[in-house]
Amino acid sequence: MHALIVLAHPEVDSFSAALAREAATALAATGWTVDLDDLTREGFHAEAGRGDLRDPPAGLLQIMRAQKRAAAEGGFAPDVAEQIRRLQQADLLVLVFPFWWFSGPALLKGWFDRVLANGIAYGPDPYVDGPLKGTRALACVAVGADADYYGPDGVAGDIHALLNPILHGTLAYCAMDVLEPFLVFGADGRDDTHRTAELDRLRRRLTVVADESPIRTSPLRAQ
Amino acid sequence: MHALIVLAHPEVDSFSAALAREAATALAATGWTVDLDDLTREGFHAEAGRGDLRDPPAGLLQIMRAQKRAAAEGGFAPDVAEQIRRLQQADLLVLVFPFWWFSGPALLKGWFDRVLANGIAYGPDPYVDGPLKGTRALACVAVGADADYYGPDGVAGDIHALLNPILHGTLAYCAMDVLEPFLVFGADGRDDTHRTAELDRLRRRLTVVADESPIRTSPLRAQ
Repeated sequence: MHALIVLAHPEVDSFSAALAREAATALAATGWTVDLDDLTREGFHAEAGRGDLRDPPAGLLQIMRAQKRAAAEGGFAPDVAEQIRRLQQADLLVLVFPFWWFSGPALLKGWFDRVLANGIAYGPDPYVDGPLKGTRALACVAVGADADYYGPDGVAGDIHALLNPILHGTLAYCAMDVLEPFLVFGADGRDDTHRTAELDRLRRRLTVVADESPIRTSPLRAQ
Repeated sequence: MHALIVLAHPEVDSFSAALAREAATALAATGWTVDLDDLTREGFHAEAGRGDLRDPPAGLLQIMRAQKRAAAEGGFAPDVAEQIRRLQQADLLVLVFPFWWFSGPALLKGWFDRVLANGIAYGPDPYVDGPLKGTRALACVAVGADADYYGPDGVAGDIHALLNPILHGTLAYCAMDVLEPFLVFGADGRDDTHRTAELDRLRRRLTVVADESPIRTSPLRAQ
């Protein structure tokens, strides 16, 4: 079993980076082969566009159509093609990121926009079938604020609902097996005891990640 | 009255770009001064990090703290400082973007992550007060799919709920006056009649945008 850990945080000493390294260690100790993909250190850039293609069209680039063609013809630019290759090898995708502006960083969104391409990550039957069907997906999110800020009655909103565009809109769209997200609250402080406990909780979670039942995501309803 | 139009689409011939140009023309015709900020053409990059600061710390960069210090000391890197300057002049902010992966493109998220900085776009009293209080904010979104896909019972989820991280989590967080978003569905096709009608609808909307009542956003509740 092979895991791809995508880290989307610019700082190598951040708590998100520590979570990603802990995930890599824990999975390796449980017998997984692991690819730790630190997007910043890889020099990955977030802006989708003609740079994603080896041979962009002269006229208007319609991205979904261009991706579909590139998927069929192997026409992605080297950085995107390399990320796709690493994704395709994974039985488990772990996304590690801080919660910024009620979502992941632009770096993570850019990975979605560029790498989860039409024909690569999804096909004509979203939510049901696709090239990534059966790949497990775990979002591991470092939230700066405390849990009550993002609780069911929190001023910011419910964290699970706020993650819906990622969990349902992206990972489930690709027919992946979405796992209950791993959420760390109060991640902004420098409370080493709290952080050590959370790293330990992640380690224990990952030792059984192969046996977990996926969650059922659903469309976000009007409120 | 001065408007900043932030366009987050890589293609100059895209429908999003056409919407941004229409917005600029319509506002100018109504007496606004207009700044059309085409992030791709400006060379804006989306990845937040030490490059946002003129003088990043030697050790771990904690972004919210670093932003607060930079806001007090004028310590932002030139590209961020320039975007901030343009934002601060605006009485109306118009965000024009395509709906990709249930959100805006990474380019837009990067503008949030880097430009809507602590001490610049919000302070200690989010949702209630802040440096941008009273600035009007209009999201203008080109959605490829048809409206029923994103309707209250759509398979993708309700578009207003999906925009909550932007409308409530970002714009209202900054105490801006959030306006009802301008949504164009079926924007992926090449139906010129539809597009012309939608550009016309945007033009008419913007002639009265100064008099519109803001909407009331609220935290996203658990579902």
